[in-house]
Amino acid sequence: MDLHILDHRLRVTSISKNGLVNYTHPLIKLIFLRNRTRCKFFSLTETPENYTVVLDEEGFKELPPSSEHLQVEGSIWRPLNVASNGNASSSSQAVGVTKIAKSVIAPLAQQHVSVFMLSTYQTDFILVREKDLSVVVSTLEEEFNIFKEVEGEYMSVGCKDFTNGLQKNGKEAIQPTVHPVLIPQNQFCVMSLDPDTLPSIATTLIDVLFYSNSPKEDSESSAGQDLDCIKFFSFSLIDGYVSLVMDTEAQRRFPADLLFTSSSGELWRMVRIGGQPLGFDECGIVAQISQPLADGDISAYYISTFSFDHALVSPKKVPCHSCCKGN
Amino acid sequence: MDLHILDHRLRVTSISKNGLVNYTHPLIKLIFLRNRTRCKFFSLTETPENYTVVLDEEGFKELPPSSEHLQVEGSIWRPLNVASNGNASSSSQAVGVTKIAKSVIAPLAQQHVSVFMLSTYQTDFILVREKDLSVVVSTLEEEFNIFKEVEGEYMSVGCKDFTNGLQKNGKEAIQPTVHPVLIPQNQFCVMSLDPDTLPSIATTLIDVLFYSNSPKEDSESSAGQDLDCIKFFSFSLIDGYVSLVMDTEAQRRFPADLLFTSSSGELWRMVRIGGQPLGFDECGIVAQISQPLADGDISAYYISTFSFDHALVSPKKVPCHSCCKGN
Repeated sequence: MDLHILDHRLRVTSISKNGLVNYTHPLIKLIFLRNRTRCKFFSLTETPENYTVVLDEEGFKELPPSSEHLQVEGSIWRPLNVASNGNASSSSQAVGVTKIAKSVIAPLAQQHVSVFMLSTYQTDFILVREKDLSVVVSTLEEEFNIFKEVEGEYMSVGCKDFTNGLQKNGKEAIQPTVHPVLIPQNQFCVMSLDPDTLPSIATTLIDVLFYSNSPKEDSESSAGQDLDCIKFFSFSLIDGYVSLVMDTEAQRRFPADLLFTSSSGELWRMVRIGGQPLGFDECGIVAQISQPLADGDISAYYISTFSFDHALVSPKKVPCHSCCKGN
Repeated sequence: MDLHILDHRLRVTSISKNGLVNYTHPLIKLIFLRNRTRCKFFSLTETPENYTVVLDEEGFKELPPSSEHLQVEGSIWRPLNVASNGNASSSSQAVGVTKIAKSVIAPLAQQHVSVFMLSTYQTDFILVREKDLSVVVSTLEEEFNIFKEVEGEYMSVGCKDFTNGLQKNGKEAIQPTVHPVLIPQNQFCVMSLDPDTLPSIATTLIDVLFYSNSPKEDSESSAGQDLDCIKFFSFSLIDGYVSLVMDTEAQRRFPADLLFTSSSGELWRMVRIGGQPLGFDECGIVAQISQPLADGDISAYYISTFSFDHALVSPKKVPCHSCCKGN
């Protein structure tokens, strides 16, 4: 299989709920006005805690200088993804993070490489710190042909191509922390749309992203909302591809003819990992979740945010018995 | 003829060019998310100096508390408009402010009542200070049947209905200041669209209103823009009706099939009044411009902003010889 190290140099940031109004101007530009920005990698995920924004350096320049409302993780992150090049030996029919659990996630966890996962409708991005790239390459080069994207071209690389040496991060056995999990009641869909039709859903998307916390004046209030449901909405626009993850309540607000999903009506349940914010330095969290999913050949998406991780799995197979012993 | 005193209590405000980013969140709500706000009267006009925002008290509440970027005129303003009730004796075919120059504008100027004009595609709003209403009614009640809107119903009123007395503002002869005018090269159109199709132009409208001062990354830059052209764009959403005033360059960015104008291709030239900001206390400026237009039966729209006034007249009849002696 091929592993691509993409050319985006990413920042992982968080905007506070109260601070979003101060970031509406740059975020709307990044989402809707592609010809006004050079940003090619943009992702915005709302959770109950905050808004996680992952974006490349061109996008990061659009954000106002640091304020009390913006937290920025200190590293540059690089996205990897696994290209299905036709001759993959995997017999799995599963999609998402399950496919890469054993080949990528587990080996990186063993090498103590922190990963930040971003599943989209199109693919699964594995974000690693740029300073860890040499460890990543040396860890994965037996299993993968590794290519580095340089100005749109892919060049084969080995770990010798990285200047910060070959030393691995250490080999002690992992002592995984078992994090509590939350399994909210709402169901989610993972969707996409033709980027040329993005203007058609602009007002709805703006309403959902930027005004969902302000009360509505009409009768359609969310008064009856189940308290066991979680607020979670993710939008990404990466290399021109749009991906949306939302619950069925939000989905009803969008025109049904524009958004599409891989199979009609496919819904996912969420497993949120972490009772306290997870931080960025602990390794093995994704591995802990994805390993049993892979063992059961259960499809799953996985979206990391600034505070917590989120796995989306088939509702009949919420794997709390196999991976979440602490719950 | 009937004169209506509408039920909106308006604030006239100005947002600085640099401060717009801080107001993007509430302004987008006021423009596009009607079910999230009780605001029924909203107007936003960009000029080279600033953004003039006229809005009712419900809309005003949406703006962040006063900052260095927001100026608020101290008064409450009330919009008047003249209803064409079929038996008008006027033989004029002219539209806009010309129709009301002699019946409304001139008498109010003589009574030293300041007016703030806001022409839209649908009608011409004459804003007067609420404290001047008794003078307005006593001045205009000979010529008009005057009705006050109360919760959607129109009630006949006379000047006795206003508690702040009957005294007029004084009767000295007006000594009009002759203000310099500017006649930019660009041509303008006055348009409307079905409010239900507003979402279809959302991204274009957002781009024009909120990002027109940031450079574009693609080749469509405005490098060749004539320096004699003025930046002027006006959007209003009043009682559910949308009106747009823009130059032909901005017009080309919108889909041609959604916006409509009264007669195809009707274009207007602008006369901007004022070399220095006009303020809100001088009376007779609109009268000075509209009187000769009325004499010549020349149609004109008239849009006041925080700093300057703007008349839009037929291009073959730019009246600089008749009213702008100071130029």
